[in-house]
Amino acid sequence: VDFARRLPDYQERVERTLDRWLPPESEAPQRLHAAMRYAVLGGGKRVRPLLMYATGETLGIPPGRLDGPAAAVEIIHAYSLVHDDLPAMDDDDLRRGRPTCHKAFDEATAILAGDALQVLAFEILTRDRELQVEPKARLRMLEMLAEASGSYGMAGGQAIDLGAVGQALDQVELEDMHRKKTGALIRASVLLAATGVPGLTPDGYDALDLYARRVGLAFQIHDDILDVEGDTATLGKQQGADRARNKPTFPSVLGMDAAKDLAQQLHAEAVDALRPLGASAEPLRWMSEHIVTRRN
Amino acid sequence: VDFARRLPDYQERVERTLDRWLPPESEAPQRLHAAMRYAVLGGGKRVRPLLMYATGETLGIPPGRLDGPAAAVEIIHAYSLVHDDLPAMDDDDLRRGRPTCHKAFDEATAILAGDALQVLAFEILTRDRELQVEPKARLRMLEMLAEASGSYGMAGGQAIDLGAVGQALDQVELEDMHRKKTGALIRASVLLAATGVPGLTPDGYDALDLYARRVGLAFQIHDDILDVEGDTATLGKQQGADRARNKPTFPSVLGMDAAKDLAQQLHAEAVDALRPLGASAEPLRWMSEHIVTRRN
Repeated sequence: VDFARRLPDYQERVERTLDRWLPPESEAPQRLHAAMRYAVLGGGKRVRPLLMYATGETLGIPPGRLDGPAAAVEIIHAYSLVHDDLPAMDDDDLRRGRPTCHKAFDEATAILAGDALQVLAFEILTRDRELQVEPKARLRMLEMLAEASGSYGMAGGQAIDLGAVGQALDQVELEDMHRKKTGALIRASVLLAATGVPGLTPDGYDALDLYARRVGLAFQIHDDILDVEGDTATLGKQQGADRARNKPTFPSVLGMDAAKDLAQQLHAEAVDALRPLGASAEPLRWMSEHIVTRRN
Repeated sequence: VDFARRLPDYQERVERTLDRWLPPESEAPQRLHAAMRYAVLGGGKRVRPLLMYATGETLGIPPGRLDGPAAAVEIIHAYSLVHDDLPAMDDDDLRRGRPTCHKAFDEATAILAGDALQVLAFEILTRDRELQVEPKARLRMLEMLAEASGSYGMAGGQAIDLGAVGQALDQVELEDMHRKKTGALIRASVLLAATGVPGLTPDGYDALDLYARRVGLAFQIHDDILDVEGDTATLGKQQGADRARNKPTFPSVLGMDAAKDLAQQLHAEAVDALRPLGASAEPLRWMSEHIVTRRN
């Protein structure tokens, strides 16, 4: 597929944009800026930006207009990993095949780097000049990013996740946790690209929303499966960490076969949701497939 | 002075607004929402909101239009205290006369509550309907809040502060640290109120900016003095904590007498800066006096 061939270009594009928006290490406070760059650059699958560019191809949006929003969602994701990895949270030493931020720097710097990265994401959406949308659409995008990141979104999902250690969740509770923890920001990645697009009908927007919800959940289920079946070198993080921590996961709650079936079913539903958008949605179909077959 | 008499009303107004914007404890994730409310409500001098309302009186802005921005800056301030108090940072047990957030809850919850509070501040500025300014002015306000909070503002100042423990800073370095750590958000409190105000001239805006810079630094110097001369019960936090931690402060760098002189000089400069605004700036004059005479 064409989108697969363009993947390296998009990934390079993401690195370039992130590098441009991140404060340079030469400027004070240098250690903080170094930690922010360490946490964001050089690694990461960039799934959220890729979903955004795939949505952009589907809707005919030039990629340059999505660079800022793509950087913003990736920076929110990167900051969340820095805080999640802290000793008081998941206490992880390895991330993207390297020491976690608090291991490479120190805990206090990691906390502040996460804090400053979160602000940076909002700053990018606020001031990015290449994002050529009306101020009202921009404010709607900022609201979306806030909802996806806050206590009813990602941060809330992480809180539920921490409280769930050693608990027996049922499938409904597990899905609610992951809708917040991972799903909200993945959904925002698609919907931010679809905001302020003149030609997009409400039906088209709803189709993308449904697609993004299905893909968001499929992503997390596949992550849970990789935690069991992957290996540490390929994953770039400790394999088996969820199990070691006694966290409820889709394989542990549903059984491995049912978890795999569910991921495939969600992928099928995601592809199905795209039907109103026609052939131009091929990049999003490819991304959905990629998300449930990736090895890290 | 009239503003002093209206202080209790404004403080009540702040509590009401914060209560309204904070997620209710009845909604999941409840422990996270409880920690967010604990960190923000019931305590705090509300200096930043008061500066905002004092600017509002000076410029003839109805207080209802400033409720959202006032809540936003106070929430940023509250989140920064939660993270600063963490064991990996200043490791404080007492704040506003009560156990710090990580003591009352736990470290992970305190980290996430801070994260979610920071988002909430941006969300309020994005969606508050009573803030009747044009979308462009609102975006400028969001940009200001981001600059004041990020790695070149508050988070950056905190990083410098951590790196300065046991270091010999000179007055220039100390002022730079505090301009970022405390000054940036205090300045934003004044300038957010002054954004999108139709009748305000560039000279008037610059006068407010200069006032805010002087008051921001005076605030921190007085804080350093209180750390030496105050008592724990009145302060609501551990007296002598900076000294115990071997942090450079204005009294330790300049000597106590020179620190007090500098605070008075900055207060005089702040009042002087207000001259172009005439008699209507009385509330801001009162706030400057209040800031360098307060006992906690």
